[in-house]
Amino acid sequence: MLEDRIRRPDLRNRVVDAATAAAHIKDGMTVGMSGFTRAGEAKAVPLALAERALRDPLSITLITGASLGNDLDQTLAKAHVLARRMPFQSDPGLRKAINAGEVMFIDQHLSETVELLRTRQIPPVDVAVVEAVAITESGGIVPTTSVGNSASFAILAEKVIIEINTSQSAMLEGLHDIYIPSHRPSRMPIPVVSPESRVGLPYIDIPAEKIAAIVLSDKQDSSSTVLPPDEETRAISEHLTEFFLGEIARGRLTNQLLPLQAGIGTIANAVLHGFIDTPFHDLKMYSEVLQDSTFDLMDAGKLVFASGSSITLSAEKSRDIFPRIGDYKSRLILRPQEVSNHPEVVRRLGIIAINTALEFDIYGNINSTHVNGTHMMNGIGGSGDFARNGYMSIFVTKSLAKGGAISSVVPMVAHVDHTEHDVDVVVTECGLADLRGLAPRERAQKIIANCVHPTYRDVLADYHDRALTRGGQTPHVLEEAFSWHVAARDHGDMRRAFTTEI
Amino acid sequence: MLEDRIRRPDLRNRVVDAATAAAHIKDGMTVGMSGFTRAGEAKAVPLALAERALRDPLSITLITGASLGNDLDQTLAKAHVLARRMPFQSDPGLRKAINAGEVMFIDQHLSETVELLRTRQIPPVDVAVVEAVAITESGGIVPTTSVGNSASFAILAEKVIIEINTSQSAMLEGLHDIYIPSHRPSRMPIPVVSPESRVGLPYIDIPAEKIAAIVLSDKQDSSSTVLPPDEETRAISEHLTEFFLGEIARGRLTNQLLPLQAGIGTIANAVLHGFIDTPFHDLKMYSEVLQDSTFDLMDAGKLVFASGSSITLSAEKSRDIFPRIGDYKSRLILRPQEVSNHPEVVRRLGIIAINTALEFDIYGNINSTHVNGTHMMNGIGGSGDFARNGYMSIFVTKSLAKGGAISSVVPMVAHVDHTEHDVDVVVTECGLADLRGLAPRERAQKIIANCVHPTYRDVLADYHDRALTRGGQTPHVLEEAFSWHVAARDHGDMRRAFTTEI
Repeated sequence: MLEDRIRRPDLRNRVVDAATAAAHIKDGMTVGMSGFTRAGEAKAVPLALAERALRDPLSITLITGASLGNDLDQTLAKAHVLARRMPFQSDPGLRKAINAGEVMFIDQHLSETVELLRTRQIPPVDVAVVEAVAITESGGIVPTTSVGNSASFAILAEKVIIEINTSQSAMLEGLHDIYIPSHRPSRMPIPVVSPESRVGLPYIDIPAEKIAAIVLSDKQDSSSTVLPPDEETRAISEHLTEFFLGEIARGRLTNQLLPLQAGIGTIANAVLHGFIDTPFHDLKMYSEVLQDSTFDLMDAGKLVFASGSSITLSAEKSRDIFPRIGDYKSRLILRPQEVSNHPEVVRRLGIIAINTALEFDIYGNINSTHVNGTHMMNGIGGSGDFARNGYMSIFVTKSLAKGGAISSVVPMVAHVDHTEHDVDVVVTECGLADLRGLAPRERAQKIIANCVHPTYRDVLADYHDRALTRGGQTPHVLEEAFSWHVAARDHGDMRRAFTTEI
Repeated sequence: MLEDRIRRPDLRNRVVDAATAAAHIKDGMTVGMSGFTRAGEAKAVPLALAERALRDPLSITLITGASLGNDLDQTLAKAHVLARRMPFQSDPGLRKAINAGEVMFIDQHLSETVELLRTRQIPPVDVAVVEAVAITESGGIVPTTSVGNSASFAILAEKVIIEINTSQSAMLEGLHDIYIPSHRPSRMPIPVVSPESRVGLPYIDIPAEKIAAIVLSDKQDSSSTVLPPDEETRAISEHLTEFFLGEIARGRLTNQLLPLQAGIGTIANAVLHGFIDTPFHDLKMYSEVLQDSTFDLMDAGKLVFASGSSITLSAEKSRDIFPRIGDYKSRLILRPQEVSNHPEVVRRLGIIAINTALEFDIYGNINSTHVNGTHMMNGIGGSGDFARNGYMSIFVTKSLAKGGAISSVVPMVAHVDHTEHDVDVVVTECGLADLRGLAPRERAQKIIANCVHPTYRDVLADYHDRALTRGGQTPHVLEEAFSWHVAARDHGDMRRAFTTEI
């Protein structure tokens, strides 16, 4: 019922079709759209914009929370709508355009985008497009399955377009906690002192006159592309469980651990899923994206509270959870990504951060983003907010990719997203390396012994031995450091760097 | 007078000579010593320890605030006392031992060391050795010219040795603000909301029974090794001043700017010194180390308040300032480095962070630490605490080193301490590149046009052009990316990578 979804009567006459709403977006504008990890993105207006661009070319800067679902980034890229894109994406079509240099992609720490906007260090948002489950009696905008940057987009933009999505459960209302840090130089502490702290409003509070158009839609969120746990992800989870049990035995952690953050994706999701069969209990999450494992852990009685910026579930899990999301509401909060990822809160709460590496090197430097050091996959996302500032920073990956042609443990990463200073523990299915308190030479020994796949182990050990003869805090044979990547680039197989028998 | 310096009478009988005090330190122990950027380090006990080690070998893990003065790191390294050292050093002798693999050096973000200790993620401190100007009536320990990690060392150690240094001005008392974050999971916000916030005690509060020995000393702090401004550092300062004036003109900053952090060293000191001749006023610093420029700016009426973790001055400036340090006390605070560098406070206050790069690459990645990617200079220090979390992250360096044989702007840095995500502005004497909101390909154009020395410019532009033909978000020719470093390593001259006419 429109009355339930637009509860402030004088706003109901602002409902228009998507093309009419999209007409507010002009060539050259900066547009802020809702959407975080394929959840809660505006759906109708960007599609209408892409359609219009096919007839009447235009290009914009598109800023979102994080990745969009419904192939929107691909559709917009194909219609050449995207001149610039920030701060994250995960779309194969857009990725291709980025790597071809057709779209300028600004890959940012997810906590920082709205700080840059608020302080006008990047061009201002002209139009915000935000998906909502409802507009309240007072004109407050209730987001759907993500908050992302939507609140600040709506606050900072000149015009706001609301997409009321009737396929999103009205029961989501009350889940959100919208807190905006005050302006400097009089900024006060963010009062979040535990994952369950509620410190803001359950809606985005903007003057109603800024709402330029309201569009109705019923397109669903895309499902998560996360794969179920397999033998290797289970092994990674088991190594981490064993490690945490050791920490508990040494009195460093309790069975409750500390608030958990897990990056998006199959491996991090599988790691958390594995915690179902452990003695850990009364766990809490303070994360970005809440995936299937969040609800599995809650249903198993292991997880008592989860704070995030979005909910992104598999198709099956969506059908299970969203019809009864009301049952979880007392145990869930969705926050702006600036708060879910805020350095202040991450350090205060002492987050255990679990993120996925594309590759790591013998010294513990992490590449999260660039294939062969040059080609973008998705982006750094929020991993840097958590890895730098948390209690403990863990990176996980399978030791091999492409059927063994690629080793995820390399002599030197060809792109650095997280430096050795920010990495405490690395884990593959082969084993775990606890790097805390170790110098680079010691890190290399542990990583080579524990994490690299046997196919690559001896060659990597030989590289390190030869590097050691050259000395240094972080010994390398510079002219060989990227030989594996060059082989991968030229032959699709890192093993070609050291053998012709492939 | 001993009575003024040890005001709690029952502690006066704990005064012993340095060798007797040092006897509390046994082989294999972890020792936490005061000292930050050559200021306020314990002086007598480490010397006695080094002397003893020559007769009776022992090795320890030494943790400090940051670098030590009085050649202590060198003396300890020569006596083979140091098995492990963290989190920072800047000593030529120790550096040699580190790069030879004789001392394991753990190079840490300066805000993180005591978090790791407090949560027992690294081995506990057995003995703390802290320089003090006085012990109060209640047994409180008043640090000298630095706080560093001294407070947490004293709180966490089993035994504490105090060095009362009578050459340090008694007027330093009242300058310090010792605040220790509460334990998780009940940690509260750190109440620092401006550089001048006083939130703790003016002394380190520990049970007097932990004080195992008191040693008297009168050895002075070493002077800063900072060089006076020269033509190039003046040019860097002018580029930055012009940039800030542009930000003010665009309404992004006021003439007060935002609280300033400046890394230790000649260039950052010169940059701040240059602010004397600008329209900026009522400036504040929220930094680690307060150098000559801090006092020059105060004396010029430009700087109204400075918060740091240490005061490190040139010989001349020391003779000028310390006798009248009382005059500055209402405008100065010295804090634990955990608080001066805390991500929470750094983000809240919106720090403008100015740090020195060893080299940076065409995409804005920074190497602060490793010569030719392998050999340690000093360490990352606090630069990562500020660069990741501040309002704006600026890196400065001269475009050339070694008489032109080394370019500080390279195709790809051979070691990454700060990723492009953490770098907003880079400056050399040639010019400034504002990288905010730019994709890597755009960053490269600006850096090559503005920052690289003309000797290297065309070759660097050619590298980037050829890299572009290979595509990607961050194009590189991997097999050539380190060719300049290889030439520097093998021939002492990067130009040998592209010309034989050297």
